Amino acid sequence: MSSESETPSSAPPPPASQPDQQALQDDESKSVSKKAAKKEAAKLEKQRRRQQEAAASIAAAALNLSVEDDTLAANYGDVPLPELQSKDPADIGNWMEVGALSEALKDQRVLVRGRAQTIRSVSKNMAFVVVRERGYTVQCVVTATPDVVSRPMVKYVSGLSRESIVDVEGIVSVPKDAIKGATQQVEIQVRKLYCVNKALPSLPINVEDAARSEVEIEKALQAGEQLVRVNQDTRLNFRVLDMRTPANQAIFRIQCQVGTIFRQFLLSEGFVEIHTPKLIAGSSEGGAAVFRLDYKGQPACLAQSPQLHKQMAICGDFGRVFEIGPVFRAEDSYTHRHLCEFTGLDVEMEIKQHYFEVMNIVDRLFVAMFDSLNKNFEKELEAVRTQYPFEPLKYLRNTLRLTFEEGIQMLKDAGVEVDPLGDLNTESERKLGQLVLEKYGTEFYILHRYPLAVRPFYTMPCYDNPAYSNSFDVFIRGEEIISGAQRVHVPEFLAECAEACGIDVKTISTYIDSFRYGAPPHGGFGVGLERVVMLFCGLNNIRKTSLFPRDPLRLAP
Amino acid sequence: MSSESETPSSAPPPPASQPDQQALQDDESKSVSKKAAKKEAAKLEKQRRRQQEAAASIAAAALNLSVEDDTLAANYGDVPLPELQSKDPADIGNWMEVGALSEALKDQRVLVRGRAQTIRSVSKNMAFVVVRERGYTVQCVVTATPDVVSRPMVKYVSGLSRESIVDVEGIVSVPKDAIKGATQQVEIQVRKLYCVNKALPSLPINVEDAARSEVEIEKALQAGEQLVRVNQDTRLNFRVLDMRTPANQAIFRIQCQVGTIFRQFLLSEGFVEIHTPKLIAGSSEGGAAVFRLDYKGQPACLAQSPQLHKQMAICGDFGRVFEIGPVFRAEDSYTHRHLCEFTGLDVEMEIKQHYFEVMNIVDRLFVAMFDSLNKNFEKELEAVRTQYPFEPLKYLRNTLRLTFEEGIQMLKDAGVEVDPLGDLNTESERKLGQLVLEKYGTEFYILHRYPLAVRPFYTMPCYDNPAYSNSFDVFIRGEEIISGAQRVHVPEFLAECAEACGIDVKTISTYIDSFRYGAPPHGGFGVGLERVVMLFCGLNNIRKTSLFPRDPLRLAP
Repeated sequence: MSSESETPSSAPPPPASQPDQQALQDDESKSVSKKAAKKEAAKLEKQRRRQQEAAASIAAAALNLSVEDDTLAANYGDVPLPELQSKDPADIGNWMEVGALSEALKDQRVLVRGRAQTIRSVSKNMAFVVVRERGYTVQCVVTATPDVVSRPMVKYVSGLSRESIVDVEGIVSVPKDAIKGATQQVEIQVRKLYCVNKALPSLPINVEDAARSEVEIEKALQAGEQLVRVNQDTRLNFRVLDMRTPANQAIFRIQCQVGTIFRQFLLSEGFVEIHTPKLIAGSSEGGAAVFRLDYKGQPACLAQSPQLHKQMAICGDFGRVFEIGPVFRAEDSYTHRHLCEFTGLDVEMEIKQHYFEVMNIVDRLFVAMFDSLNKNFEKELEAVRTQYPFEPLKYLRNTLRLTFEEGIQMLKDAGVEVDPLGDLNTESERKLGQLVLEKYGTEFYILHRYPLAVRPFYTMPCYDNPAYSNSFDVFIRGEEIISGAQRVHVPEFLAECAEACGIDVKTISTYIDSFRYGAPPHGGFGVGLERVVMLFCGLNNIRKTSLFPRDPLRLAP
Repeated sequence: MSSESETPSSAPPPPASQPDQQALQDDESKSVSKKAAKKEAAKLEKQRRRQQEAAASIAAAALNLSVEDDTLAANYGDVPLPELQSKDPADIGNWMEVGALSEALKDQRVLVRGRAQTIRSVSKNMAFVVVRERGYTVQCVVTATPDVVSRPMVKYVSGLSRESIVDVEGIVSVPKDAIKGATQQVEIQVRKLYCVNKALPSLPINVEDAARSEVEIEKALQAGEQLVRVNQDTRLNFRVLDMRTPANQAIFRIQCQVGTIFRQFLLSEGFVEIHTPKLIAGSSEGGAAVFRLDYKGQPACLAQSPQLHKQMAICGDFGRVFEIGPVFRAEDSYTHRHLCEFTGLDVEMEIKQHYFEVMNIVDRLFVAMFDSLNKNFEKELEAVRTQYPFEPLKYLRNTLRLTFEEGIQMLKDAGVEVDPLGDLNTESERKLGQLVLEKYGTEFYILHRYPLAVRPFYTMPCYDNPAYSNSFDVFIRGEEIISGAQRVHVPEFLAECAEACGIDVKTISTYIDSFRYGAPPHGGFGVGLERVVMLFCGLNNIRKTSLFPRDPLRLAP
């Protein structure tokens, strides 16, 4: 009953046929067509059905084997549902993390749970399973041994589908040679192996394919081998699989750390974290690019930023506040750096004397953040770099500050003509980034005193020249990540500024009224979390740093 | 030119006539009528215009005085705008926080910025100003003294409007007697006083009125004095003023701390903070109570919870994740404990053996949180208690766990009949809370093994009895704050569960598909931030713990 023909999938599953063999495009993600997605889904559904049948027959075969032929059947098999619903809570098990396995555990019995990343059947007597947990991998060896491991067990293991969740119990051994295919330099000599949850036998993306760097693909191509390249859209369609690559595991841990440092730094400086509403009456300050909805019969929209409410918190005596929350932009931007929903890091604070007080916070906060990432997230940065090579960010101990006029002059000296009172376009920003890097050796700097005309109406003009303003942008690797300014806190003057910008003062009366009950001078800034991570890691697309990105064409998964 | 008649507002402004003298209602906030709000706004607008004229005349008078009569005119007056736009950034000033003023600074010269909370003119030669910064207050004394403080300066100070922002420079003195009207037990003998920003002479809410406790009002009433009582809706209409009360300053600092502890605890336990999209295709799992909108031509809705996406993050190998973010519910709930938008604290984690692993996190997390609040936020809790008296929360070192069946039995024994397989209503929850407090001496406990029928379709049934489920609710002071469970991670079984609940499986295929690529057993829970703060502080309305609450009738400010 154990002939090969009966269990056709005991060999490692063949690479899945899939739609992602196409070349990695320009990553601008314009190409998600609904039709293609539907087609892919239908294909997948068909595949799934076929494979469910296959899986059922495997299970049946396994059952037959264990019941009829195997006295060691209790050592392997599929974990039945009731056991996953509730083991004895008192029996907490002796679980170990894959990442914690080391030579110190030699000859000890360990128990791990992870995914069967790759399964390799060597013979009827031996199989290898690389088990992965949170990016760490260990090689597990299943060898048929009398009274310990049966041949049917080797067969069962060989038939596991990749990415299935398995519990492995065994003895730690230390092989003579270095292990190439796993992060941990020990093996587990398997005694027991149970499958907790089965993955489809054929996956829409293989995690190894998704983890491959462009360099590797190119190298293989030169050697005449065509490796699978998973494009950005396919990754996002099957994000649950894509997330499992070492680079993605690292990217979102880095993202978490950016938020953590942001918070810790600000809390230590006396800031209070607030939560402001995302549902706003009427249409937000900006105007055009908002998502509108009906709120119990009232017209409403989603907040484009917590601008109004964070300023109200300042007028409400909180002194210094920050918020981390979603920000919604209905813009039709199809670039590598725009999303329709992203995580905003927003700060607002009283100013005693000068808008530099706000810039000082930016300066110290970001230097602390970069230091912390470089120091404490070396392993994660390396995981990103392995798939997406990048140079460490160059930044100074005290962040460089240039006035807008100085920036314009640098561009001019380099032969780039730009409007001295207009905004910089993406190209000029890149160019200026390059010039600054050459001259000052930094890829992180502040450009301040922007022309008033290119800033929002509530921006405080400069005292000495109302054509400029007490405002700033901050750049990483030539791209803007932060926008900040001192705000106009005098209600009468604010109304004048709004009118001067052609805004009907009646439509923003709630905003202006907030300053009528005594308002301290104040300022603040906003940062896009995804952009910080993207630019710190030198990535080429903001979709890589958003767990479930939303752009004009993507609203799923 | 300095006769009293010319500056009619040099006396403290009379209490503003306002619509909030009505009794504090049942706080269920059913009473926001748009008409009333409009009327109030119109009234305010009229008031404002009148007062602007008044303010202008005061300013003109002050100018006259300073120019014509006063050689010490440089020591006081309104700070001109250019100076607020930019002082020399190098001259950082010698600012001190009001809360830091103490006897140790006796005879030293200090500089503070704060609000003129109350202004009391004693004579032409003397005035008192209580200056408040972030809830801390100090009494400032302005005494006409040859060559130091002029009579016009005393007059200028007497004419300040309450809540205006002022810069005060002076010498710290220590009076013999305790100072009743201020938190700091020193005075500032004023040398210079400038007004940075003027509040309207008459405010829609006086901060002192808004800070008054019900007890105080009742006591005064018994003594024949009718004090102003600011009702909940008026507070929210003028939240910028209401926020300035010591209780509100404390409540939102406590809220910040709850979030901070939540995060710190989870990070220390290996959780990763994620950000999931609030814009969701189609209509969310639940169905009815979602806010719908058009997303670039596609039907979309606002996420009712990050349920799907946090589970996807688990299937994506993050192991343990959490999120802090807005959650949207379009329900028509007009209770003291429901909002249409609130801050969700969401957790999801792999389960190795038993759903108690999730409950263990809840247990340790919340005990740590309560401990930290009681230990480090004593001053803030006292500020809340002063206005809204409450008893400290009673909780055990190891959180009490009762099964649903045990809870039902306790109710039964107390003569309360409830459906043993139905949900508890608010009343039964309250009653059970009371019984638990009497029997076990705790106001914080976990009720688990809920009937399966009253939980969402993705809840894992109990292994020994499918009428019950691996789920739990957590209660504070008899009200539910947390809902959690083990989830069904087997896609085929999940589809069955959905069908059994009458859900069309096609509509949730994305959700179910996430589990087809290998899904570990997992569970999690969700908490409402505002509810935790409300119940920990024994407050009677969730609108008190939301900075800008949203309910079916309120979408502003």
